[in-house]
Amino acid sequence: MAAAVCLGGVAVAMGQPQPASENVDLAMYSRIRDEGFNRSHVMEYGSALFDDIGPRLTGSPAMKKANEWTRQQLTAMGCANAHLESWGEFGMGWTQKGASLEMMKPGPAVFLAQATPWSPSLGKAVTAEVVRVPSLKTQKDLDEWKGKLAGKVILYGDAPKINPDPKPLLEHYDVAKLAGLGQYPLDGDMSEQGVLQSTDMSFWRGLFGDLAFKEKVAKFFAAEKAVAVLTPGGSGGVIEDDTLGTFGWYVYRADHKQAIPEMVIANEAFGRMSRLLAAKVPVTVKAEIETEFSGDHEQGYNTIAEIPGSDPALKDQVVMVGGHLDSWIAGTGATDNGAGTIVAMEAMRILTSLGVKPRRTIRIGLWSGEEQGIFGSSGYVSKHFAEFKFSKDPKDADVPEFLQTMAAAPVMKPEAAQLSGYFNMDNGTGKLLGIYAEGNAGIGSIFQQWMAPLKDLGMTTVSLRNTGSTDHVPFQMAGLPGFQFIQDPRDYETRTHHTNQDVYERLSPSDLKQASVIEAIFLYNTAMRDAMLPRPELPMAGEAKPLEGLFLDATKDGKKGAKK
Amino acid sequence: MAAAVCLGGVAVAMGQPQPASENVDLAMYSRIRDEGFNRSHVMEYGSALFDDIGPRLTGSPAMKKANEWTRQQLTAMGCANAHLESWGEFGMGWTQKGASLEMMKPGPAVFLAQATPWSPSLGKAVTAEVVRVPSLKTQKDLDEWKGKLAGKVILYGDAPKINPDPKPLLEHYDVAKLAGLGQYPLDGDMSEQGVLQSTDMSFWRGLFGDLAFKEKVAKFFAAEKAVAVLTPGGSGGVIEDDTLGTFGWYVYRADHKQAIPEMVIANEAFGRMSRLLAAKVPVTVKAEIETEFSGDHEQGYNTIAEIPGSDPALKDQVVMVGGHLDSWIAGTGATDNGAGTIVAMEAMRILTSLGVKPRRTIRIGLWSGEEQGIFGSSGYVSKHFAEFKFSKDPKDADVPEFLQTMAAAPVMKPEAAQLSGYFNMDNGTGKLLGIYAEGNAGIGSIFQQWMAPLKDLGMTTVSLRNTGSTDHVPFQMAGLPGFQFIQDPRDYETRTHHTNQDVYERLSPSDLKQASVIEAIFLYNTAMRDAMLPRPELPMAGEAKPLEGLFLDATKDGKKGAKK
Repeated sequence: MAAAVCLGGVAVAMGQPQPASENVDLAMYSRIRDEGFNRSHVMEYGSALFDDIGPRLTGSPAMKKANEWTRQQLTAMGCANAHLESWGEFGMGWTQKGASLEMMKPGPAVFLAQATPWSPSLGKAVTAEVVRVPSLKTQKDLDEWKGKLAGKVILYGDAPKINPDPKPLLEHYDVAKLAGLGQYPLDGDMSEQGVLQSTDMSFWRGLFGDLAFKEKVAKFFAAEKAVAVLTPGGSGGVIEDDTLGTFGWYVYRADHKQAIPEMVIANEAFGRMSRLLAAKVPVTVKAEIETEFSGDHEQGYNTIAEIPGSDPALKDQVVMVGGHLDSWIAGTGATDNGAGTIVAMEAMRILTSLGVKPRRTIRIGLWSGEEQGIFGSSGYVSKHFAEFKFSKDPKDADVPEFLQTMAAAPVMKPEAAQLSGYFNMDNGTGKLLGIYAEGNAGIGSIFQQWMAPLKDLGMTTVSLRNTGSTDHVPFQMAGLPGFQFIQDPRDYETRTHHTNQDVYERLSPSDLKQASVIEAIFLYNTAMRDAMLPRPELPMAGEAKPLEGLFLDATKDGKKGAKK
Repeated sequence: MAAAVCLGGVAVAMGQPQPASENVDLAMYSRIRDEGFNRSHVMEYGSALFDDIGPRLTGSPAMKKANEWTRQQLTAMGCANAHLESWGEFGMGWTQKGASLEMMKPGPAVFLAQATPWSPSLGKAVTAEVVRVPSLKTQKDLDEWKGKLAGKVILYGDAPKINPDPKPLLEHYDVAKLAGLGQYPLDGDMSEQGVLQSTDMSFWRGLFGDLAFKEKVAKFFAAEKAVAVLTPGGSGGVIEDDTLGTFGWYVYRADHKQAIPEMVIANEAFGRMSRLLAAKVPVTVKAEIETEFSGDHEQGYNTIAEIPGSDPALKDQVVMVGGHLDSWIAGTGATDNGAGTIVAMEAMRILTSLGVKPRRTIRIGLWSGEEQGIFGSSGYVSKHFAEFKFSKDPKDADVPEFLQTMAAAPVMKPEAAQLSGYFNMDNGTGKLLGIYAEGNAGIGSIFQQWMAPLKDLGMTTVSLRNTGSTDHVPFQMAGLPGFQFIQDPRDYETRTHHTNQDVYERLSPSDLKQASVIEAIFLYNTAMRDAMLPRPELPMAGEAKPLEGLFLDATKDGKKGAKK
């Protein structure tokens, strides 16, 4: 709080008078809707990016192509100043060239399998016996497997249980769910989903705390001359390929490079081989894992472009929109977060094709490194807006920095005073049903007025709750108005998130058109209104201190009767 | 009808008095339920058959293993006379040894793909350019592609459209649906689903009528020296592998052997490559299709075993239970029709382990060749019970015989007089909710009485409607009481039927236990009651003839005023 008072620009933004009525331009609403629904290019952007460039793992050659392609496209549609901006150094580039898994004995079967990200290459197909090794947790566990793994393919981990009743694939938020989201949570629990920054580090310590041992297991398997490791992940034609399945979170760093080739395989394949081995039936597989490393310490880049502001007094002020351009690799990252990327591009295209002259500058940021630690957007925020101060608790050595508790309020940079707001979409392909206002009570009425003419598009709900896990978070951490839209969930959590099913066919063209129109309108409104958007309180405002002298019979040092 | 009167044995069965009240043994119901629910082996049968033996394509070495394994298991559980019985000559044996498809250009991708049944081998991996060829329908279509296909992989057929809203995977029949099934259809439409035998041949002629041209297309591709063909089938991690996707229904016959290697691939992979080629992006893939042919003109076998009858007057009479042991190959045939197989085996095991002494003989028939034409069960019926007379309309030359219209009533054989009934289960893993009585009105009250004590298991509904597409049909065609149970649909039609998702994990253990208990009870009741089950009318009773002389003013030759 103290910090906010000191910062002229920020204090101005917080203190700017906010009119009770928004002066929205309904003619512009009509033009944006017409362009976005009747002359959309969002699915063409999608096909070129997902089908042609394909998956975009941070640091990979395909990521580089995607950066360059987005820069070109943004220039082609009429944006100014389209460029790539480094957010810092990343680890190794990596590409899956090919992967397959076939059972040879007791009988032939074709299994669903892909390389885990940053898996070393196994080269050409290798045929080997399979051995089942349950999760190893201690040095003693490792010792028991010494001398037993040479030349084997390891079926590693706990066998997943699959309920024969599948979850419904498709979910839509209904009126009751949205009404609930629109209610301020009087119990004080503001988090709707996956809020990253937390004072309770136990979850993250649990997730990252055994990295060293995980790496030790991989090195042990390699030292024992095992051929490869197969881990289960996903069922029903879905396999999940994020680094939660690898031997450590930091496998993209050369100093943590995974020691043994690994594939993630369908739970049904894992189950079949597990049951056979449990019944003492020998299992042999033919495994192919072809991967390629392409460099180390490469810079990671965001793609940035603008529609310049036209009001001499406001043109240095900025409203931003974005999504992350990077993805995992089993699919093509169409919904995570290709959808957010092409919707933001299409919103910019709608505005440029209408020839709008916004008062403030409208800027798109397409981030990378999101999947490994929100690197692109937090690097951008650090460089432009605020310096973060994290706690550096030794217990959190393995926890990525952006997940750590802040030790002090961020130190704001002058550019922070110019940012009106940031809008993000990263919950799949579902249409926009509202927006998470992230505890920024001042903004609710503004957004409600913007949304009133969008009711027929299903855009109805302002929730004061927080949502997390993506690129608006660094903005919020810096006390800047960063917002994620409320999206219809569809099959994001049940099917596409971080899986081989995250492909073009999972996109809903009509929902993506709707989202593009709404993003364009939000950008336009933010760029045109007289005042900047109201800001939230800076982080580190702290918790309420207990009142003192409240209980007449309380002792000063807490010892009963000490006063006597 | 006339035929029925002539056949002593059949007439006796049809004419046997049927008491109004069934004399069921509730103590035996309890014992069967206890054995079936508390000491079930149905899932162990499942794992051994699906995980170890794997898919069981008719004519394949795995099919032979499955025949032998079922014979051994039926003997081991205490059945008598377990043996394999030929149903006639089949075509070529075939095994998929391995299959994979990877995109190389414009970027790497791992696609979901498997060989289509009886595809020739491509041998080791071949890398080639992809060319898109839409469905060819005429010689002119073929001519247009001459000289353009050498060395190419062909993406063949119409690009499937995928709705981003997936169908619900799981379906359960509710009370209203079952109540509807239980109502006699006063509009005369007796068919609930897929009734094969029909006087309207247009559907089948449509399906099979262009076989010759389909084969011509494959031969054209081969003559043009194309490398392989990729056809779309299935979405969302599912690929479908029956011969509806191959170049002709009869690819298992040496004289119709497919001329070119083929894989069925996920619709999403087909879509991605189609969109790229439409955008003039060259596509290169690496394809591996390793298949093996293992013989021709081999006999097809059913596995048969019995619990001998103990009543000297009735022991030559038989009640049968079954399912088909063969399957397609992308999965392991766990639900189609592994479920029916292991439930029938478990029903027999329950009865043998309880040491029952049935009055009539209880016989299990595990059929093969079902997927190619219900060959096993219709061969069995032809050999033992009735000779069929089909129309042999030249227009139906390509339509399999069992689908053709009957030209005359079947000629019954003496053994037909001894068959009381046949029970079949072949609609997936879902529990039994009732039974289709196939228009046999005499049997409704009997089954209702048997089912009354099974209401708590969900077994409630007798439907007089017909159901089709599986092994009870030949019994019905011969005028014998052959029944298929009503099953809870679950994810059979949405996910597992003829797909790579038809695996052990898709089985519902609790539903399979329920089905085993109910089959055992139905077998026991049929074997123990005084009379055989009432029979339906023989086929070919014909339709009602119009009454004559009904309209006073009608002329004899239909010419108005001719009478004057």
